[in-house]
Amino acid sequence: MAVEKFPADDPNDPYAGSGLPALGLRNYWYPVMAAWRLGRKPRAVSVLGEAVVIFRDGSEVFALAERCPHRGARLSQGKCLYPGSGTLTCPYHGWTFSGQTGSCVAKLMEGPDAPGSRRIVTRAYPVRELRGAIWLFVGDIEAPPLEDEVPEVLRASGEWHGFSTWRTYRCNWRIMKDNLCHDMHAPFVHRNSPELMFQPVFPFASRLAAFPLDDGNGIGYVAKDGRPSVDYPGLGTFPPKNETWYRLLKPTGRGKEIDLGAQAVVKHGVKFRQSSLMPGATFIGRPSGNYFALRWVTPIDAESCFYYSWSLFRRQSWWRTLRERAFWIFWVSWAHDWLFSDQDKRILEKVIVGRESHSRTDAGVIAWRRYAADHARRRAASGAKSAQTPAAE
Amino acid sequence: MAVEKFPADDPNDPYAGSGLPALGLRNYWYPVMAAWRLGRKPRAVSVLGEAVVIFRDGSEVFALAERCPHRGARLSQGKCLYPGSGTLTCPYHGWTFSGQTGSCVAKLMEGPDAPGSRRIVTRAYPVRELRGAIWLFVGDIEAPPLEDEVPEVLRASGEWHGFSTWRTYRCNWRIMKDNLCHDMHAPFVHRNSPELMFQPVFPFASRLAAFPLDDGNGIGYVAKDGRPSVDYPGLGTFPPKNETWYRLLKPTGRGKEIDLGAQAVVKHGVKFRQSSLMPGATFIGRPSGNYFALRWVTPIDAESCFYYSWSLFRRQSWWRTLRERAFWIFWVSWAHDWLFSDQDKRILEKVIVGRESHSRTDAGVIAWRRYAADHARRRAASGAKSAQTPAAE
Amino acid sequence: MAVEKFPADDPNDPYAGSGLPALGLRNYWYPVMAAWRLGRKPRAVSVLGEAVVIFRDGSEVFALAERCPHRGARLSQGKCLYPGSGTLTCPYHGWTFSGQTGSCVAKLMEGPDAPGSRRIVTRAYPVRELRGAIWLFVGDIEAPPLEDEVPEVLRASGEWHGFSTWRTYRCNWRIMKDNLCHDMHAPFVHRNSPELMFQPVFPFASRLAAFPLDDGNGIGYVAKDGRPSVDYPGLGTFPPKNETWYRLLKPTGRGKEIDLGAQAVVKHGVKFRQSSLMPGATFIGRPSGNYFALRWVTPIDAESCFYYSWSLFRRQSWWRTLRERAFWIFWVSWAHDWLFSDQDKRILEKVIVGRESHSRTDAGVIAWRRYAADHARRRAASGAKSAQTPAAE
Repeated sequence: MAVEKFPADDPNDPYAGSGLPALGLRNYWYPVMAAWRLGRKPRAVSVLGEAVVIFRDGSEVFALAERCPHRGARLSQGKCLYPGSGTLTCPYHGWTFSGQTGSCVAKLMEGPDAPGSRRIVTRAYPVRELRGAIWLFVGDIEAPPLEDEVPEVLRASGEWHGFSTWRTYRCNWRIMKDNLCHDMHAPFVHRNSPELMFQPVFPFASRLAAFPLDDGNGIGYVAKDGRPSVDYPGLGTFPPKNETWYRLLKPTGRGKEIDLGAQAVVKHGVKFRQSSLMPGATFIGRPSGNYFALRWVTPIDAESCFYYSWSLFRRQSWWRTLRERAFWIFWVSWAHDWLFSDQDKRILEKVIVGRESHSRTDAGVIAWRRYAADHARRRAASGAKSAQTPAAE
Repeated sequence: MAVEKFPADDPNDPYAGSGLPALGLRNYWYPVMAAWRLGRKPRAVSVLGEAVVIFRDGSEVFALAERCPHRGARLSQGKCLYPGSGTLTCPYHGWTFSGQTGSCVAKLMEGPDAPGSRRIVTRAYPVRELRGAIWLFVGDIEAPPLEDEVPEVLRASGEWHGFSTWRTYRCNWRIMKDNLCHDMHAPFVHRNSPELMFQPVFPFASRLAAFPLDDGNGIGYVAKDGRPSVDYPGLGTFPPKNETWYRLLKPTGRGKEIDLGAQAVVKHGVKFRQSSLMPGATFIGRPSGNYFALRWVTPIDAESCFYYSWSLFRRQSWWRTLRERAFWIFWVSWAHDWLFSDQDKRILEKVIVGRESHSRTDAGVIAWRRYAADHARRRAASGAKSAQTPAAE
Repeated sequence: MAVEKFPADDPNDPYAGSGLPALGLRNYWYPVMAAWRLGRKPRAVSVLGEAVVIFRDGSEVFALAERCPHRGARLSQGKCLYPGSGTLTCPYHGWTFSGQTGSCVAKLMEGPDAPGSRRIVTRAYPVRELRGAIWLFVGDIEAPPLEDEVPEVLRASGEWHGFSTWRTYRCNWRIMKDNLCHDMHAPFVHRNSPELMFQPVFPFASRLAAFPLDDGNGIGYVAKDGRPSVDYPGLGTFPPKNETWYRLLKPTGRGKEIDLGAQAVVKHGVKFRQSSLMPGATFIGRPSGNYFALRWVTPIDAESCFYYSWSLFRRQSWWRTLRERAFWIFWVSWAHDWLFSDQDKRILEKVIVGRESHSRTDAGVIAWRRYAADHARRRAASGAKSAQTPAAE
């Protein structure tokens, strides 16, 4: 893999000095797996380079450091041996940890009188279920409520129904997130995807700008003066002539900016067709205010990331909900979440990291990198209470 | 692989300063392959990080450095071109080496008058066949007789019959050997293996101690005051209630210590149920003195090791030998050497090496690490005759 | 892989200080793929460690650096979107590059008025088709004409017909090229290949010497006083007795040196049966002057190389050409290019690089290493015009 081959301060590393670490921004919540995939068996995940075990006990979900502090076995190979206790037991010598606090509540092979158990504390991660996903807070400060950190449409499951898909990308999270910064790759890369090929190409050759969001949690993008067809002297037209005869549909408006009277703006304050949210999410609004998409990039390690994508529809009537579900199942999941996103995946996983030559269409990428670096949460100043304490005896 | 990721003196490396090198203890004999697997074709093995070729010529077995000193081809791709000469010929230009001394006896492409052949000497390793295995001595001193280095029951094939199995573990040899230091993982890890699930759990929550063996070649373990069932307030009983109803058999005594009147003690001086022998072997005795098990850990490289395991039965009568063989073939090989040991393998190969938190049950591990480091053979002082000379011209 | 594990100046590295870099000699032409394999789709190749994309537009072939200077996508995933323009378009945002000059002629997503396109220049490589292969010039100086760099028999397709095969070897190019320096491995390694097993073994135990070629582009080898059979006291005869009874054919003369009256010498000035040409080719002549073989080693990266091999027959009559083609297709391609060369491949890919002990038969290897290092083209002195300029904006 080409990612992360640069030493610190290498002038060829496009992220050098960007303030965006290879392993992701700490002190944020990240979706890490679909909730229904977590059954009785603990599951190991890697998030921001940290190995974590997630397990259920009854209705509760817990997350601990994957490595047992005793002799290094993996807790994900263990199990919740005492249901109802909220504990996970190591597979090797039976050290048993509270999922809540991370403290060792028993060393099963030593008897209840074994000294010092309680002084053993492994790292416990704040963990939540929301909108079908398990979310993990990775960082060094006290976790803020997850609800404060996600868009309204994700929280309010009574008003919104939807679906999610997820994939692993074998590229650094920054390359993946760059791809979602309205950088005009869509009219080019996706122009012949099944979802878009019968429409005119999205307007391009436009002027891009980015503006901070009102809530201080990201930036929104605006593109102006776009055109769906442009002539290049000496080359020809884009899109090329042999790609135009089958574009029979009318534009759906997906490429259009949101105007101030749109329901999305009036009802939800979503002023931008596309925006980037901390710590690496992308929020896509439709002017109707009846459909939103949220895509979240979760760093796995320096060489791969996890991509969680929600499609959210406003609940309007049972038959409309039914229709939307059918639409999603039979069309969106295939045409968008699979084929459309595969077009990006194929390119992103092969990107050769190096010095970049930026241009007009990179305005959104540059704005995101700068914004994220400037607004990333830092470790709490000394004296602040940290959420969890690392393992020690 | 998680093994060996620590730089020297990293405080998180549990073996740092332990005196136990990642590549194993030099100047000992190690079993490296089953003898019947060495046919006419030379075989390459890796032992303590060294690439070695082993070959047969008639009834004799020889071992040389795998790399030809001429242009670096692998001697294991060559063959014994002149049977009876005890030589191996390189596949590339026909340099021919004495298996006994490592010296180059001919450069086949140069004629018998080629100058300087005899000054070329590659490394020859002391090698032996014993109890079905090929043994190699890896080190820098003269090899002591192999018979002096292994338990009596392995040597005396007239009095003992038995079987061996072997496996490769993808973990450092120290992690594997730690597992064999009577650290109370057995009552936990193996409690539901087919071999043990119908018996009460081995006594645990005991006090462990280790004592040097009389012959100065290792330590023996003693566990006292063990119990087969313990209550943990707030959690429940171990073994858990739902795991007890099928434990219908009586204890077999396998978990019991050896008393001084036992035949194992009286006849063979084996005073401990379990002991660790240099350079990484484990010897398991039964009080009856009619069965012993020997397991030998041979480092392959920093990330893997070879595990050679013998089950040895006293020859008592032909029908008893027959019964024991059937028992081993139809039961032990499956229930113990395969399924039981797989339970460890699954954990050990995934251990994340790092700082450990030791506890009561690690007394045996700590004792072994200290003993082995203190008693490991060092390179002979200068002036001592070294067994073999490295390649030179 | 064992290759390239030595730090600079390691005394065990046989190539240390040899002047032969692990990635190959720059400023030469190299064959990189069969021309018929390059269709409409651009192809990525790696040559001397550089990632290059090769593409066709009509009858012309172009080669550019594989990495797009914009955001690092791979141009080989793009396509020639405007046939006839000689350009290649990046798959990510449509940056379009001239195959001839490497300059960016359009950023398709920005419109024709986008500033600065022309200042973006990626690396364009001199590229040619010759004798069925695509050739690439990798270096920092202006490329000399390819015709001046290859033997006459390769250029003159009107007088010579032939075939080529190619393989990838998983070893450094130097190990592969050493193998082709008339080092007497052939009488040993290949003695039982289908091609040679029914003939007497090639003469060996000879005296080897190497002489510079008249055209200053390599060295030719001479072997004297060779014998097809030699006795080794204490071992036996080589070839071994049990390998002689099936050698029923007469010698074909393939092992014989070329005499001064031979047609190869008189007509083509080819004075040596085998010679090494810069930058890593091997030229094998037959005294008849009616058949030549050329084998070219192209470094891929430090751990692998590409081997391109031509068999060239003089056109004499249509029926003779037909017979030669049948001979090649049904015999040479199988017996030589496949099985014979597999015998080397098996050894070379497993060589453990380290300190070597040279001997008489290495005279050709030593001579080649020295000659190549002394005669390798260096980067042009400052002030010289360089063929291409690297990407910059």
